[in-house]
Amino acid sequence: MNGPAGATPHASSRAAVLDVIRAAGTISRVGLVKATGFTGATISTVVRRLIDDGLVWESGRAESTGGKRRVLLQLNQSSRFAVGVHLDHAGITYVLTNLGGSVVARMSRAGVGTDDPPVIMERMATEVDALIDGAGVDRSRILGLGLVAPGPMNQISGVRLSPPAMRHWEDYPLAGVLETATHLPVVLDNDATAAALGEHWSGDVGGTSTFAAIYMGTGVGAGLVVNGITYRGVSGNAGEIGHICLDVNGPECWCGARGCTETLAGPGAVVAAARADAELARTAGLTDSPERPRWLADFAAVTRAALRGDARAKLLLEGSARHLAVAARTLANVMDLEQLVLTGPSLAIAGSIYLPVVQAELDRSFFSRATHSVTVRLSHSAATAPAIGAAALVLQSELVPLREGSRLPDNLGEAEPTAQPAGR
Amino acid sequence: MNGPAGATPHASSRAAVLDVIRAAGTISRVGLVKATGFTGATISTVVRRLIDDGLVWESGRAESTGGKRRVLLQLNQSSRFAVGVHLDHAGITYVLTNLGGSVVARMSRAGVGTDDPPVIMERMATEVDALIDGAGVDRSRILGLGLVAPGPMNQISGVRLSPPAMRHWEDYPLAGVLETATHLPVVLDNDATAAALGEHWSGDVGGTSTFAAIYMGTGVGAGLVVNGITYRGVSGNAGEIGHICLDVNGPECWCGARGCTETLAGPGAVVAAARADAELARTAGLTDSPERPRWLADFAAVTRAALRGDARAKLLLEGSARHLAVAARTLANVMDLEQLVLTGPSLAIAGSIYLPVVQAELDRSFFSRATHSVTVRLSHSAATAPAIGAAALVLQSELVPLREGSRLPDNLGEAEPTAQPAGR
Repeated sequence: MNGPAGATPHASSRAAVLDVIRAAGTISRVGLVKATGFTGATISTVVRRLIDDGLVWESGRAESTGGKRRVLLQLNQSSRFAVGVHLDHAGITYVLTNLGGSVVARMSRAGVGTDDPPVIMERMATEVDALIDGAGVDRSRILGLGLVAPGPMNQISGVRLSPPAMRHWEDYPLAGVLETATHLPVVLDNDATAAALGEHWSGDVGGTSTFAAIYMGTGVGAGLVVNGITYRGVSGNAGEIGHICLDVNGPECWCGARGCTETLAGPGAVVAAARADAELARTAGLTDSPERPRWLADFAAVTRAALRGDARAKLLLEGSARHLAVAARTLANVMDLEQLVLTGPSLAIAGSIYLPVVQAELDRSFFSRATHSVTVRLSHSAATAPAIGAAALVLQSELVPLREGSRLPDNLGEAEPTAQPAGR
Repeated sequence: MNGPAGATPHASSRAAVLDVIRAAGTISRVGLVKATGFTGATISTVVRRLIDDGLVWESGRAESTGGKRRVLLQLNQSSRFAVGVHLDHAGITYVLTNLGGSVVARMSRAGVGTDDPPVIMERMATEVDALIDGAGVDRSRILGLGLVAPGPMNQISGVRLSPPAMRHWEDYPLAGVLETATHLPVVLDNDATAAALGEHWSGDVGGTSTFAAIYMGTGVGAGLVVNGITYRGVSGNAGEIGHICLDVNGPECWCGARGCTETLAGPGAVVAAARADAELARTAGLTDSPERPRWLADFAAVTRAALRGDARAKLLLEGSARHLAVAARTLANVMDLEQLVLTGPSLAIAGSIYLPVVQAELDRSFFSRATHSVTVRLSHSAATAPAIGAAALVLQSELVPLREGSRLPDNLGEAEPTAQPAGR
């Protein structure tokens, strides 16, 4: 661990330092000491190794502030890469990012549908090859692959409790199979947590490093970032606002509870109500497919109808938005947040309808509103945030020292101090 | 800050090290390096100063594990003390704790009722004097006073948004007035957060250092402890489960929202329903006082009736428990928790009725139940946990270096490394 208060620490001092250099753009060793809380000796050692390994370089000197001009460090962006994969019913999104998290290649392919996991895994391995080859990146520079899917996830075995359309994925050993198929180390996480990390890495969240990303794909969830690190909880499933109760007498949800956000506000609920309205179904051009993968396409069709001025479509979406807004308020109350980002494929489409409703709810009834307000934003990369976050997981994880064959102990903070001066 | 992942770091390295020594009982310097993530050099320096100041002593040597036998450190328990005050409608609870957080004196007095703040402040100063004098503790050894009250709180001005009975406390400069009246540094917090910290310090939570304390006094709330530190959010008001929505169509709450936990499940709701039942009101001996301070007494009367076997009283409390259970599930889902503690004055009385209902709800529908379960416990110190936590706030806060006139910088992690060997 990297400090006594580490809610969800980086896997190593090395990964933590890399993350701070990335976020800062350029930074001195003294700046790193301040930002990480590590001693100067630790920073000196970690930075020296990062330079030796080619991940970081010295890019010049800062302006003098009276004393010696400090050497500035920055990432060697194209020294390493990571693959991020967002696996969903409706589509599989792939990104290849450099060490700084910038997307250098992306592609979208068909979703998992009803295919069996082994079929999908084989296809994914081929698609990952195509992504890497298309970008012309040397495979030895790829640190690993982050795979994110609707939660709850288990780091070892993969999907544990899944929505009906993904039931056949439960307990399938995702990570192991994919490692074998791609020859890359694999880390798993849930899509909402990854989306939050993706928002943080894409720099869209402005000055704050503590916020929640409210995620709507075919399901509803949220990811939490506290001081720049994902807050994961005991099993990596924190932020589950899709299955909190908004109505104790509400309809039953597939998860076993009643009146869940997802059941009341999710794309599935909107699409079901729209299909039940014969005229809206006709004018919006909805299908009557029972398959969950179709939800996203039909949700998009309802949204287009609303944006064209269809009053009934608008009413349905605003009803969904009011429920999502109450869930957002619960999340803001429990975590005492001041920043929320709306993200994920469904909010990439319908975010402009949801944003004012969620903001109004928080302005009106966030519990600590006398102390501070809560600002709600639309993501600029709502469709790809989970995949970007998946790649960021690799960059942040212990795969960095693992693949680099580092001679450092996992946690430098536990090592004997060295005689290196701080902040040269 | 004390590390890159510090959600809510200790005010200083010194306070963090003190907290780890306290929690461990006895620990070596090497153990401190492991537990805090600080370097050996930092630990050596901090420990030397703590010994010089008389807060810590060397208590012997550990059994040999092959090498040199390590020197064990422990707190000098009676070297310093802290006052904890829990201010509520129904009562004011005072505790005096030693440096380890053990209660050495306690007393309970009448609540704030409808008295004006200046009257209460004057009375509190007298009562604090009586507490300290009664315990025979030298005033110079008292680090400060922690004051906790129903939230949301503001660290500077005090209560911000308050339940109806405490409206006249809004924006009253609690900390300043009390500092002047008691000549002690004062820290403020909300009662639910303090209760969680009190549970952690009292050691009741077992092996875990990440949990939520669900608090029921006259209101409902929760406090969050993540890796042994309170998670506070942006304004210290995290854990607000009293004002999350359990029923979008539910009754209006004083906070401005609808269907809040407190309105559906709080002692006020139970007492109102019991008073409306003429026979129950008579047999339980309820008052018809509209005052909020009476709620707790009448809630206790309803609980006694239920424990005697009164079916209607039992029905009311179980209805409240079912709503509280849903709020508990929301909290567990959002934070992905595996430990909950039921605490606070109302659950000190009725906890045995609430516990099985909350546990059953989590067993049945906690979202990540396929990955792990959530264990619910009754606090052993439910009535005094907030006051103990208030004192712990002082012990954990920057008051430690402040009152000790330490020559250390606030954050040793930022200092130049020294040549001290680690873990001698």
